[in-house]
Amino acid sequence: MVHLPFLLTEDGICRLQEGHLFILDRRRYPFERVEVSCRNAEEVATALKAMVTQGGGPLEVALKTMIMEARNHERLPLLNQVRHLEEAARLLADARPTNTTMARSLDEVLSEVEQRKDEPPVKVVEETVRTILDRFAGIYHRIGKLGSTLIEDGDQILTTCFAEHTFLLSLLYAKQAGKNIRVLVSETRPYLQGSRLTAPSLEEAGIPLRVITDSMGPTMIASGKVQLYMTAADLVCRDGTVVNKIGTLANALACSRYGIPYHVLAISPDPNKNTRADVTIEMRDPKEVTECMGIKTTLDTIEGVYPAFDIVDPELVTRIITPKGILRPGEMEEDGI
Amino acid sequence: MVHLPFLLTEDGICRLQEGHLFILDRRRYPFERVEVSCRNAEEVATALKAMVTQGGGPLEVALKTMIMEARNHERLPLLNQVRHLEEAARLLADARPTNTTMARSLDEVLSEVEQRKDEPPVKVVEETVRTILDRFAGIYHRIGKLGSTLIEDGDQILTTCFAEHTFLLSLLYAKQAGKNIRVLVSETRPYLQGSRLTAPSLEEAGIPLRVITDSMGPTMIASGKVQLYMTAADLVCRDGTVVNKIGTLANALACSRYGIPYHVLAISPDPNKNTRADVTIEMRDPKEVTECMGIKTTLDTIEGVYPAFDIVDPELVTRIITPKGILRPGEMEEDGI
Repeated sequence: MVHLPFLLTEDGICRLQEGHLFILDRRRYPFERVEVSCRNAEEVATALKAMVTQGGGPLEVALKTMIMEARNHERLPLLNQVRHLEEAARLLADARPTNTTMARSLDEVLSEVEQRKDEPPVKVVEETVRTILDRFAGIYHRIGKLGSTLIEDGDQILTTCFAEHTFLLSLLYAKQAGKNIRVLVSETRPYLQGSRLTAPSLEEAGIPLRVITDSMGPTMIASGKVQLYMTAADLVCRDGTVVNKIGTLANALACSRYGIPYHVLAISPDPNKNTRADVTIEMRDPKEVTECMGIKTTLDTIEGVYPAFDIVDPELVTRIITPKGILRPGEMEEDGI
Repeated sequence: MVHLPFLLTEDGICRLQEGHLFILDRRRYPFERVEVSCRNAEEVATALKAMVTQGGGPLEVALKTMIMEARNHERLPLLNQVRHLEEAARLLADARPTNTTMARSLDEVLSEVEQRKDEPPVKVVEETVRTILDRFAGIYHRIGKLGSTLIEDGDQILTTCFAEHTFLLSLLYAKQAGKNIRVLVSETRPYLQGSRLTAPSLEEAGIPLRVITDSMGPTMIASGKVQLYMTAADLVCRDGTVVNKIGTLANALACSRYGIPYHVLAISPDPNKNTRADVTIEMRDPKEVTECMGIKTTLDTIEGVYPAFDIVDPELVTRIITPKGILRPGEMEEDGI
């Protein structure tokens, strides 16, 4: 039995209480454990747009918002209940247009409500959300167990950003198998998800770690201090192209040059993305680049650029760890969870 | 005629006034223009150790400290004056043991005092310091003119850290020649020399620039947005190995993969360093990595690692721009300024 750190527990992401959804504010973690309280899908959509939670957080937040919406309207006529749920799903999906996993899960909830017309929507939504969350938990653990087999005793593993359940579970299962491992965490500017989310979570999980600046990953790889680079993926194309947080490419290039494996943890390829030609990189607010935790790092007159993600060619990826097994990038194909 | 930005003018580095040496505090620039005031070599050494100035700053600071020391003791017997100068040079050199250019310039001052025994030490020191500073200015402009010939109209140039005179002069001479250029400045964590020193200096020089995080350089190179990567070097070995600020290797690797030139600006190779085997990388205080501008970026319990420099193999370097000309890394050899 392995225990996930607080940030990855259900309550560490969000929780329903007295008609409100309380979302843990990852922007302020680990300095404060503050929750943002939302009363309806509209407020949740605003919170998602403002990056209160990120990574895998929005999926769980969106599903629990559907429960909140179903409960809020359970006394209305059936047709109105369904309309409210449809409107909620639309608002949530629009808040994170690139999160196709979330959008597909919301569709699944609506489709169940549609098919099980004779049952109260609240019951259908609650049951479907539970089913989906349990299914994802199963997937996370399956990926984690597979990932752990690629980690060897004594490895120092480099990671970028906050690779969440699948990464933490890979490490926890490796540790459970008696492997001594250490992690180098890239701080992941500009939001510092490495320093703020990954590092405290690893510490809580009892896995030794040290933080480096994003400039140091290739140096550590070149000097033989890294045995494995491991990240999640924001998106995997059907040809094995990996899209992940900016900074991933630098390390993947260094891995390729110095013969270090780069393994990616991914639930499935995106069925709508065949190659890098189908990927549009989100350009985020350049102001993030000229500040750090809200404090300006240069003059107000100076501009930044902020491409949020890297596109990593399949040839730079060693293995992709999926619920279907450990695949070479060329073996990825549509499976669509 | 090209004009250097404030940070690179003599007074923007340090100035002598009323028996004090005022050193511009680069740690607080550009948010404040504050000077640290020193009355003797001991105080200057303390300031140098505390990184009040860095890069090319310590050379000028050390030389002007010798003038201050000579003036402070000009009424003492000659032998005592010389002893004070020797003691000052020792304190200064010890404050920055890896800055061999500074150490050699201090030796030159002492050797002139020794050889010109019939003249007052104050006069000899003042004249020698002026000679050395003028010689360096000549070298900077010669390198800058050569560097500018490698920049083409329309280039977007990536840089790391604060490459000072030779980089700014390369850009200014390119601009003077009518070339439209733009610069991408890597913020250069943990000290942010890119955001704090390079970016404001480029703005002041009228050269368009944008700041990126250190994770973005390879991304910009891979996506065709960089035509040239250009840095100074903290040290160049005789075989063309380049030692420069951490983060340089990541960009050099990306340049090599995507066929983008990486040019290095360097006064001369270090005659005592043949290959990377002779280089010891300074490990600085890991606390710098877990904070940004004095503010913690993670929990107090979490540790960092801080290798301060990258070692870049000669095969990753396209050209080294020296006062003797534009050389291939393999053409470097001892010349010793």
